[in-house]
Amino acid sequence: MSIFHNPLSQNLGSVRLIPLGGSGNVTKNMYVYEYRRDPKTISDILIVDCGIGFPDEDMYGVDLVIPDISYLRDKKDKIRAIVLTHGHEDHIAALPYILPELKVPVYGTRLTAALTEVKLQDFGLHAQVHTVGLQDVLRFGPFSVEFVHVTHSIPDAANLIIRTPVGIFYHGSDFKFDWTPIDGLQTEVGKIAKTAQDGILCLLSDCVRVESPGYTLSEKSIEETLEKEIRNCPGKFIFTTQSSNISRIQQAINVAVKNNRKIAFLGRSIVENVEVTRRLKYLDFPDMLVVNEKEIRKYKPTDLAIIVTGSQAQPHSALMRMAQGQHKFASVNPGDVVVFSADPIPGYENAVHQLIDILTASGARVAYSDITDALHVSGHGAANDLALMIGLTRPKYIMPIGGTFRQMRHYADMAKNMGYLDKQLILPKDGEIIEFDGNHNFKITQRLDLKNIMVDGLGVGDIGNVVLRDRQTMANDGILIVVVPIEQNSGRVTAEPDIISRGFIYMKESGKLLDDARKVIVNSLRLKKGRLIDWQYVRKQIEGNLEEFLYRETHRRPLILSVVIKV
Amino acid sequence: MSIFHNPLSQNLGSVRLIPLGGSGNVTKNMYVYEYRRDPKTISDILIVDCGIGFPDEDMYGVDLVIPDISYLRDKKDKIRAIVLTHGHEDHIAALPYILPELKVPVYGTRLTAALTEVKLQDFGLHAQVHTVGLQDVLRFGPFSVEFVHVTHSIPDAANLIIRTPVGIFYHGSDFKFDWTPIDGLQTEVGKIAKTAQDGILCLLSDCVRVESPGYTLSEKSIEETLEKEIRNCPGKFIFTTQSSNISRIQQAINVAVKNNRKIAFLGRSIVENVEVTRRLKYLDFPDMLVVNEKEIRKYKPTDLAIIVTGSQAQPHSALMRMAQGQHKFASVNPGDVVVFSADPIPGYENAVHQLIDILTASGARVAYSDITDALHVSGHGAANDLALMIGLTRPKYIMPIGGTFRQMRHYADMAKNMGYLDKQLILPKDGEIIEFDGNHNFKITQRLDLKNIMVDGLGVGDIGNVVLRDRQTMANDGILIVVVPIEQNSGRVTAEPDIISRGFIYMKESGKLLDDARKVIVNSLRLKKGRLIDWQYVRKQIEGNLEEFLYRETHRRPLILSVVIKV
Repeated sequence: MSIFHNPLSQNLGSVRLIPLGGSGNVTKNMYVYEYRRDPKTISDILIVDCGIGFPDEDMYGVDLVIPDISYLRDKKDKIRAIVLTHGHEDHIAALPYILPELKVPVYGTRLTAALTEVKLQDFGLHAQVHTVGLQDVLRFGPFSVEFVHVTHSIPDAANLIIRTPVGIFYHGSDFKFDWTPIDGLQTEVGKIAKTAQDGILCLLSDCVRVESPGYTLSEKSIEETLEKEIRNCPGKFIFTTQSSNISRIQQAINVAVKNNRKIAFLGRSIVENVEVTRRLKYLDFPDMLVVNEKEIRKYKPTDLAIIVTGSQAQPHSALMRMAQGQHKFASVNPGDVVVFSADPIPGYENAVHQLIDILTASGARVAYSDITDALHVSGHGAANDLALMIGLTRPKYIMPIGGTFRQMRHYADMAKNMGYLDKQLILPKDGEIIEFDGNHNFKITQRLDLKNIMVDGLGVGDIGNVVLRDRQTMANDGILIVVVPIEQNSGRVTAEPDIISRGFIYMKESGKLLDDARKVIVNSLRLKKGRLIDWQYVRKQIEGNLEEFLYRETHRRPLILSVVIKV
Repeated sequence: MSIFHNPLSQNLGSVRLIPLGGSGNVTKNMYVYEYRRDPKTISDILIVDCGIGFPDEDMYGVDLVIPDISYLRDKKDKIRAIVLTHGHEDHIAALPYILPELKVPVYGTRLTAALTEVKLQDFGLHAQVHTVGLQDVLRFGPFSVEFVHVTHSIPDAANLIIRTPVGIFYHGSDFKFDWTPIDGLQTEVGKIAKTAQDGILCLLSDCVRVESPGYTLSEKSIEETLEKEIRNCPGKFIFTTQSSNISRIQQAINVAVKNNRKIAFLGRSIVENVEVTRRLKYLDFPDMLVVNEKEIRKYKPTDLAIIVTGSQAQPHSALMRMAQGQHKFASVNPGDVVVFSADPIPGYENAVHQLIDILTASGARVAYSDITDALHVSGHGAANDLALMIGLTRPKYIMPIGGTFRQMRHYADMAKNMGYLDKQLILPKDGEIIEFDGNHNFKITQRLDLKNIMVDGLGVGDIGNVVLRDRQTMANDGILIVVVPIEQNSGRVTAEPDIISRGFIYMKESGKLLDDARKVIVNSLRLKKGRLIDWQYVRKQIEGNLEEFLYRETHRRPLILSVVIKV
């Protein structure tokens, strides 16, 4: 392909692309573009997105995971900007943890900027996020960046055209081709096709729905289903979806208005998101339709539509509290219709199904996607959307992002069916550094050792594998603590050792087991007189003997802790 | 309906039907049929099934759950038999825990009996399970029981026709109508229809797949897919399914034989089940085809089919160990094809998807039902199968069983579409007692307070809510232990309090926090001199003050334990 031929290539330097998150997994998106004019010196860095990830199931007690930016620590002065593609948590929500350290300007479309500022304010940070228009060309040293509007499950989502001295990168994070989006704004296919005429070196493409054949349905297809549900609803119409899904909320509002129902918003994240997006005119409804939560009981059920958090059965969400009869202002009653307009996130299926069960038992009709068609469509493109993006961009190289490894592999198979060769497909693992040179070749130069930076409460990164392993052990079998009091000087055991346990057995009913355990401890304490006692060794003895004894008796392995107290 | 009219009804007594498990949930199946000639005295009890359930996600460390048989404890001498419908764990596997207490004869079809005996032997129990033929009529006092062969995902599955003085019950546990089952034995529809002519009082029916429209596909439909996968497989053909799914294993064997591959079985439960079912001729293959696991590496990959446990990504299963490179005799390599012929059980989706990711990364092609059609069919009937059963039995009353409450409700909606009235549909919660009288009326008389009997290691029922709550707290935020040594007589604090924590923070890096915590403890110990010290109160003070301090500093709530040691 002649457009890629460049006789002066040796002077163009190189671009290194480093996924710090979002490669081999769906969330925690963060990509580093690094330019070097000469091979040894980084001149400029551009970062795309800065999102959170969800903890794995064995990361007990961990609230969320953020990208590991160790690699960037000694290069902060080279970072020109962080550019955000859209306002979802897995693309923006790690900023409050990372921006205070990096201190660089942040850019995004109008809604993305607004949502990011709100997120930063929640952490007491008052950084301004620069608003970018679709006509703007941003210049950051050797990088120039243009935004391409794409349809997704949040308004104002964008892909990025990143021009560099070695070629053009099309940063195709989350998108689908929805020709009838709720806000009327289609994906800017013209802009993409026009860029392709200049020759795109590498397409980075969303791949999470590659396993679904065909095209993802339009958001519009849902409104008809909602209309039918609300028209036949003999009680309150209760609607839940992800709080960032502004288009979906607009659709619920539309059918409520059409059917003369007042609207109440319940749950902090829905209320917050509705407030911000409405102020910016991404959400449209008359003030007089809104009912304050405290007034809900004053209205007839058939006059009400309630838009509520809890589509993933989050423990303290408004819908969960309503279902359990613990919400102060709203309840679920026979005749009510509850519509789940979101699919369960993997790992949340059981919780969602249990919630549906409770709602059903309280007499409501529950509509969810297992039994009702067209209640939810994804914001991500299916196989044909993804193929269309390849067709539009016609890149030299393709790198699937934002999906698991099996989805990346599946995406690669699809691209091969379209004529691409293995050597044109880049399937890196997190932390692998892909270097593009002026001859339009790429190679993987090294792999960074990235850690899971876990956030638990106010602690960021202070939870490591030791703490996690202890939590896992205690979750499974509890803890047993032995306290041995000894005399400071003589080392004599001054009183009978004490045993305390939590989460292991019900102590009051386990007298014999504990008596026998005490004997094991006493035996472990039979020390030779007069010798200098190595208490470290004695403690290990006690713990080892107890572990063996308890496993034999109970087939459980609690965490065992022996404490020697000098008095 | 005249067949139900009975002028002598007042003398017929009553039958009470009590779901001890399996109503409102899919597993833990156990049903009590209780006959009373006069209202005050139980004369005879018949039990159907005795299965285990899976623990909820918040039951940390619990291995399994069994039915609560408290209700039966003072009625043991009335129990005539336990009759088993089929050999799945959720129908037989609680027997080793319950049979030693109830000591009653157990009945099942040939394979069910054999699998149950193996299960009992695992616990050192050598009870004989009576084998029942399809022509047999068992008599247990006023009950007579006939077995109806049904197709399901295990051979030799049965429904039960239970005749009683007040009417006929059709006990329709797990079934589908598969007209081309692998063993050639179809559901005995003739026997069902003939019984219907006598008038069936109540149909208990499987309902778990009522949300799926149409009929469940035949098991046969899978063989073609397997055939295609193995024919195009350039390496080892690795096949995983649930180890009880004998028909599926037979199909994998069939395609292996056809394609001239030797077969290795890996994983304890597959090996055990293959051994038992083959001995009883439910599984058919020539000895000479079998490869011992130790010999696997001697064969060319293309000469091998490996049938392996781990379809749910169980932590130490053979497939998991192969994927992680930790299996002694077998590995996964580029060119291998891994076929998942089982859908993830709800709650296991993430684990299965992670396993698929690891397998993909090691270069294997992975076929699973998200991307490949006809790799798995359910053993349970879909909506039309369930409707057909209603059509065949034409019962007066219907009670959906073996499903969640939303599925029961959905089943009821389907039955109403077929002309049934609300008053003919029985949707009890676990433990509700449904009483049928001689006039063919029913009422719910009371509700038993059933507990979750949790099994953890060797302990059965010794884990209660207190232990579980402690496990949850420690799983989320760990534990912090304070030891205060005091002098036996004076009550004086003899040394500085000690702080130990596990799973809370990494102690070595938290010096300042611990120093401050120590100050909180010392302040809590500033006691008035000379007063009698209430150590119980002091401990509560320490724990309360520490909790407040730690939450403020870390937003975590570890379990806090203060121990006063008298020396």
